Amino acid sequence: MIERLAIIGVGLIGGSLARALRAADAVGEVVGCGRSLANLEKARELGVVDRFTQDPAHAVAGADLVFVAVPLGAMRGVFADIRDALRLDAVVTDGGSVKGSVVTDATQALGVLLPRFVPGHPIAGTEHSGVEASLVDLYRHRRVILTPLPQTDADALLGVTAMWETCGAEVTSMSVAHHDEVLASTNHIPHMLAFGLYDAMDRIADNDELIRYAAGGFRDFTRIASSNPVMWRDICLANREALSAMLARFGVEMTDLAESIRRADAERLLEIFARAKAARDRYLDSVS
Amino acid sequence: MIERLAIIGVGLIGGSLARALRAADAVGEVVGCGRSLANLEKARELGVVDRFTQDPAHAVAGADLVFVAVPLGAMRGVFADIRDALRLDAVVTDGGSVKGSVVTDATQALGVLLPRFVPGHPIAGTEHSGVEASLVDLYRHRRVILTPLPQTDADALLGVTAMWETCGAEVTSMSVAHHDEVLASTNHIPHMLAFGLYDAMDRIADNDELIRYAAGGFRDFTRIASSNPVMWRDICLANREALSAMLARFGVEMTDLAESIRRADAERLLEIFARAKAARDRYLDSVS
Repeated sequence: MIERLAIIGVGLIGGSLARALRAADAVGEVVGCGRSLANLEKARELGVVDRFTQDPAHAVAGADLVFVAVPLGAMRGVFADIRDALRLDAVVTDGGSVKGSVVTDATQALGVLLPRFVPGHPIAGTEHSGVEASLVDLYRHRRVILTPLPQTDADALLGVTAMWETCGAEVTSMSVAHHDEVLASTNHIPHMLAFGLYDAMDRIADNDELIRYAAGGFRDFTRIASSNPVMWRDICLANREALSAMLARFGVEMTDLAESIRRADAERLLEIFARAKAARDRYLDSVS
Repeated sequence: MIERLAIIGVGLIGGSLARALRAADAVGEVVGCGRSLANLEKARELGVVDRFTQDPAHAVAGADLVFVAVPLGAMRGVFADIRDALRLDAVVTDGGSVKGSVVTDATQALGVLLPRFVPGHPIAGTEHSGVEASLVDLYRHRRVILTPLPQTDADALLGVTAMWETCGAEVTSMSVAHHDEVLASTNHIPHMLAFGLYDAMDRIADNDELIRYAAGGFRDFTRIASSNPVMWRDICLANREALSAMLARFGVEMTDLAESIRRADAERLLEIFARAKAARDRYLDSVS
């Protein structure tokens, strides 16, 4: 049972956590904090938070659990703002989708309180944002990756694990570096491709006419291009290293494919497509 | 009303046409033709065809409408096989997803009967294939692009247009070259990216572990990687020119994006993502 939960950043991710914990009767009071007064008022109206403040230090005072769900570029500022207001036994966790940058920020800003910080990443979301988009079951049957540090307190890790399990999520742990590589391949790269494809098409005259003829595959493929550009700028900057490495690897793959098409290499094309389909089918088997 | 419809290739595309025309009471007899006896027997069992043969010339004898829905690599052979068996007033159309190669094949094989040929492409499909995957409403509210030639008979074009409208499709016309460019951007490139991404991930050790952490965006994105590798090999070979040009354009886009990430160019990244999102949102408005 969490007695007082402080949520810094009451959007889709923060709001959905509050909703899920409330629905499970696993939290006493929820205090919201954010920059948009209109969003905070909406959060109270919807019953997502009990009260709110725009001052992070004020928000965390007396809280036993603090969830930081602000854009990656704002993490360091929040950690610095809350540090001196935290209870010494408070547990702090976050929802940032890149962990290397958040851990650097936390290490520099939290100082001796670092053992109370559990870096985390719920693998869930929609292309919508704001508290109005938050959902009570956003985390049900979804994965949450925690990337504890060597100095992380065992009880802090257990507390955050229990919190996510209460929301119906499956919690796993891995290293910070491995998390950032995994996310670069499975999530960041697909977003780069979807953004890149739409942008390339936007530069073609008559692209609106083009898009009318797009079949289902294209629509599914590019749904994620509606995601928040500022959030994705921050993700790219924060996960620059792993993302650059994966993009380079993908570039080699696409150059091979483009070359095979150009020289009409039927065997090579079939080999690439068959290997991709086999990997995809293996994946479908594994989740069915 | 079509009196006798011959369908060469009774799979998802051919089977769905027969089902839709039957449901609309717009066809008398349906004759199926294909290489797999088991598939043809299944088609008769399902009531998709009335009778079948494995000989294309036999299948088209007496037919007033012939629909060729075989892989792109098999088109030329079918045209050559049926040419001397066609009624002089029969209309021939096809479902090939690249039109330049089909028109070349038809021009060489059909000779003086070319004016009776209406090149067509229903923009519909699923990742499944075979007559068992065919659906009565596959074409409802979907687009069909016809690419008539200068010598195409007006009554043949009207007949094929009416046939697709009967299936609930919206029929539009464009030039062969424009069709192949439009499809390269909106359909073929997304498939290349999905195949390429899966293949790149397949080469990474522990890729099955990677894929477990993929969120919704990735699943949608890569659904199309389950498509038929042989069909896609044929599409790549048939649309080599337009596809190579679009892949090169996309390569420039992705190089720009990768470079912007590498040098942490926040402004440039935001600009690319915002432009892509705006194009995507414009598209959503246009279809809502």
